[in-house]
Amino acid sequence: MDEKTVRLIGAATTYVQEYMSPFDASHDYNHVTRVLALAKLILKDENGSLPRPSNAPRGDRNDWEPVPSMGLSEPIVVLGALLHDINDSKYFNQAEGPVSLADLLRRWGADDQLALRVERLCQGVSYSTEMRDPRWVRNLIQEIPELAVVQDADRLEALGAVGIGRCFTFGASRGRGLPDSVRHFEEKLLRLEGMMKTRTGRDMARARTGRIREFMRWWDDETQAVAEGMAF
Amino acid sequence: MDEKTVRLIGAATTYVQEYMSPFDASHDYNHVTRVLALAKLILKDENGSLPRPSNAPRGDRNDWEPVPSMGLSEPIVVLGALLHDINDSKYFNQAEGPVSLADLLRRWGADDQLALRVERLCQGVSYSTEMRDPRWVRNLIQEIPELAVVQDADRLEALGAVGIGRCFTFGASRGRGLPDSVRHFEEKLLRLEGMMKTRTGRDMARARTGRIREFMRWWDDETQAVAEGMAF
Repeated sequence: MDEKTVRLIGAATTYVQEYMSPFDASHDYNHVTRVLALAKLILKDENGSLPRPSNAPRGDRNDWEPVPSMGLSEPIVVLGALLHDINDSKYFNQAEGPVSLADLLRRWGADDQLALRVERLCQGVSYSTEMRDPRWVRNLIQEIPELAVVQDADRLEALGAVGIGRCFTFGASRGRGLPDSVRHFEEKLLRLEGMMKTRTGRDMARARTGRIREFMRWWDDETQAVAEGMAF
Repeated sequence: MDEKTVRLIGAATTYVQEYMSPFDASHDYNHVTRVLALAKLILKDENGSLPRPSNAPRGDRNDWEPVPSMGLSEPIVVLGALLHDINDSKYFNQAEGPVSLADLLRRWGADDQLALRVERLCQGVSYSTEMRDPRWVRNLIQEIPELAVVQDADRLEALGAVGIGRCFTFGASRGRGLPDSVRHFEEKLLRLEGMMKTRTGRDMARARTGRIREFMRWWDDETQAVAEGMAF
């Protein structure tokens, strides 16, 4: 990466550290660094192959097949991973309100095309956006394929041991009880594997979804023991 | 149980529900009901056998061996389980300050001996009390053997899937990051199995400690992947 891009990434890093400092530990700067690292792993593994929607969906609205591609832009992946939680609606009340990512990026030295692509990418990361309008997200990924990498990295963060820890942490920050967080595993987390867009992301999601399922078995076993105890 | 004891337990239940309502989900009324249920399970399984310190400690300061006993008082176990987190120092700032459990119990209709035994039992439940003064706790269990049952039930709540969820929840309520909570597994939770006093509690702790260890392996695997990603 050239010096200008390195400076740009440095400015984005400083900004996002400050921006997320009031948030709870489920969406802190450590989350961002993990998403960034996972995005880099996926980027390296995909190595010139890229996901695109299958032409013959098998009834699964997120039926993606990896296909050869022209390669992905590392700066777009890195900036997208760093900035993906800016303007997250879950934290609007704790953040300084909606900010224009394209303006910020231009101020940090990005050219117009890069600024607009990263801004558009960040608009397409969220799970609830995709649930609301999967066709829009599908089209956006064809326009900005790096979105698939950032999306998968962010969704891996909701799975496995890290995902379990983040789910209870977010629940606690909203005053929810433990069973509400466990319900969230069923309602959202188990769906993510089928929504992964890259081959690497899907492989990693498979292992981490297994961990969520195992944890749920433990939970059921332990709360069953409670039900038995209450019977005496 | 006679009608007077049932009324007493009802009054304690109402009180503790209100008392714990400002606390985070790691120490809410659901935690109390789970401890109560686990204590009843252990009480039933122990069925006339009771733990006491081994005469030949094997270098383990919590080397307990179950031995036959004269049986345990169910009202003391139930009241101890219900009231064990009253006056917990972790929540002093959110609670109405230290309360006299013996006074409360007498007001609810307990005789002097029962009130004092339940109060003494509750003073011996905490892990940090035992770490600070294991001999005092050991003597207290010989005086009030029901303490072993309540202690084990409360410590089972720190293990397994429920313990993992509670650990992240408590960490979040104190503004801690996820790695701080995982460190707590190592520092405290893995020690609990060796500190269990009843046979049933120890058997249940073995399975649930295995779950903590498995979770920690997942955590290491996932954060290792992050370290690899950061290397690119």
